[in-house]
Amino acid sequence: MEHPRKAFGWAARDASGILSPFNFSRRETGDKDVTFKVLYCGICHSDLHMLKNEWGNSTYPLVPGHEIVGIVTEVGSKVEKFKVGDKVGVGCMVQSCRNCQNCAHDLENYCPQMVLTYGAKNVDDTITYGGYSDFMVADEHFVIRIPDALPLDCAAPLLCAGITVYSPMIYFGLNKPGLHLGVVGLGGLGHMAVKFAKAFGMEVSVISSSPGKKNEAIEHLGADSFVLSTDQHQMKAAMGTLDGIIDTVSAVHPLVPLIGLLKSHGKIIMVGAPEKPLELPVFPLIMGRKLVAGSCIGGIKETQEMIDFAAKHGVKPHIEVIPIDYVNTAMERLLKADVKYRFVIDIGNTLKPSS
Amino acid sequence: MEHPRKAFGWAARDASGILSPFNFSRRETGDKDVTFKVLYCGICHSDLHMLKNEWGNSTYPLVPGHEIVGIVTEVGSKVEKFKVGDKVGVGCMVQSCRNCQNCAHDLENYCPQMVLTYGAKNVDDTITYGGYSDFMVADEHFVIRIPDALPLDCAAPLLCAGITVYSPMIYFGLNKPGLHLGVVGLGGLGHMAVKFAKAFGMEVSVISSSPGKKNEAIEHLGADSFVLSTDQHQMKAAMGTLDGIIDTVSAVHPLVPLIGLLKSHGKIIMVGAPEKPLELPVFPLIMGRKLVAGSCIGGIKETQEMIDFAAKHGVKPHIEVIPIDYVNTAMERLLKADVKYRFVIDIGNTLKPSS
Repeated sequence: MEHPRKAFGWAARDASGILSPFNFSRRETGDKDVTFKVLYCGICHSDLHMLKNEWGNSTYPLVPGHEIVGIVTEVGSKVEKFKVGDKVGVGCMVQSCRNCQNCAHDLENYCPQMVLTYGAKNVDDTITYGGYSDFMVADEHFVIRIPDALPLDCAAPLLCAGITVYSPMIYFGLNKPGLHLGVVGLGGLGHMAVKFAKAFGMEVSVISSSPGKKNEAIEHLGADSFVLSTDQHQMKAAMGTLDGIIDTVSAVHPLVPLIGLLKSHGKIIMVGAPEKPLELPVFPLIMGRKLVAGSCIGGIKETQEMIDFAAKHGVKPHIEVIPIDYVNTAMERLLKADVKYRFVIDIGNTLKPSS
Repeated sequence: MEHPRKAFGWAARDASGILSPFNFSRRETGDKDVTFKVLYCGICHSDLHMLKNEWGNSTYPLVPGHEIVGIVTEVGSKVEKFKVGDKVGVGCMVQSCRNCQNCAHDLENYCPQMVLTYGAKNVDDTITYGGYSDFMVADEHFVIRIPDALPLDCAAPLLCAGITVYSPMIYFGLNKPGLHLGVVGLGGLGHMAVKFAKAFGMEVSVISSSPGKKNEAIEHLGADSFVLSTDQHQMKAAMGTLDGIIDTVSAVHPLVPLIGLLKSHGKIIMVGAPEKPLELPVFPLIMGRKLVAGSCIGGIKETQEMIDFAAKHGVKPHIEVIPIDYVNTAMERLLKADVKYRFVIDIGNTLKPSS
């Protein structure tokens, strides 16, 4: 199905995942819609999974990107929150049922009919295309205002990586001065968890299997300590010290040592999704009233709160800004975790229509 | 090490677990101690594990019993809460450090130095003996007052089975009218979870692999519905309906179907401890912000609140009262889950000194 407005971006055509220029179309600006010119789009690790159909639900052509920021160029007649020229963003979702219990509680991210920003069937039966493209059209409910204090390129990764760690820290009470947070894995999500935790006034330990991340964690990101997960002495010394853990690792990994790092009543929040089940030992959970939970991005209201908090407290991701024609190389580097810590595509200056 | 006062009970001498009459000793009533004549003692499934050294930490002779009620016969000079003639009980623990963060927050049950009521080394280096015996001596802090409204035989199982399910229902907010609780497994713990949930005004579904429990659950215990876990149609129909689950099953069992029964933000609380790790699928946890937690009995303050709540709301276990010389047969029946739902030993009328 063709929409009336010509759009342009980069798409993968098959599970090779190779991105190349792509002409497509978007809908006209509806009554409640905001249209904005895309200036920056972050590269999320899930873009890589989707490009290669690693979750088995990709459709092609696939235009990825759900960390999208830009400038409003047009608003519908019933739009109340935004005007032309506003700095805005769109994260992982562009629609939900607006009617269920989750939607009623500003938890659109858990609505069963939530529509993902790309590669999903929208309410009009068209397929959604993401932010590796020249402009976006979205219902204003799903549009986030970007505060002036936040550079637009830095704002982009907050819309997925930022909210993904911020939301569970709020929900599970891991946002209080005096508490000690562990962050497992130091990538796009992990480094944001460190930064938010420090902004909350928490003590932060990074737990990683890469010794090279110690200096990064402490010198560049402000973590208080580093625990090398492969070093039994270090792990033993850290036992029973953490109030909570944000676990960003999406490879299969043992939970037992992490449960051991928790104080009683401690919480492990999984935000990375290993494909195979993990082994869950029940006895140590029972003995310390500990819990293992999952959390998935955040609702729109909370995403706005997170962005406002980040602007106020200077919480910014470490990014490497790249031109769009570097995107396939960036994906290869992302696969090797060779980025500190988020690629952001400079769409505004480098995406040129192929004609 | 011998204490000055002769005591008498039934003990296992080895991992056969067979109980027989046993003469031992207890300490004099200390300044802060309460001494009470044991009238009833519940049989907990963990007694069976401990008798047979199935957790590898049993010492013999072993006098089990941690659901103990009776009448105060003597109090120390500094005892403030109890007097001779009071109805009292002792549950799973008789001492803790009284100094750590958990103790300071009335969570003695999670104190690393908590002393179990039987088979544990006490602060004076003697081994603790449980309630299959003629009298108990315990620090008043660990003694619970039994309200008059509660028959003593029914009060006994509340001190372990009762508090084990009550405490997580409070902590995890699964105690509110309008919420829907699932109870997995219908034994000593499970049937108490049903009764407390109904007293909280909740809707309750029992989930079990035994079709024969349907009638029991609904007719005798007051559950609202029954889901046969081996019936795919019933399980599918119940998907996404539960706010929480109290999982009492201590055999290895799949978590995936239980996670599926939860609404988003739902909670599975494990109170039975399978010996081997369970398989934990992370993706469904993330997609619904669900959690799997453990919980272990409850603190003394909360145990008193639970007993008072039970007395006020008529929450009573279903029990089968037995004489002490039936105890070995009772253990065999317990192993086959052939009891509705808790054996309680009539210590007061049937325990006779051997000499």
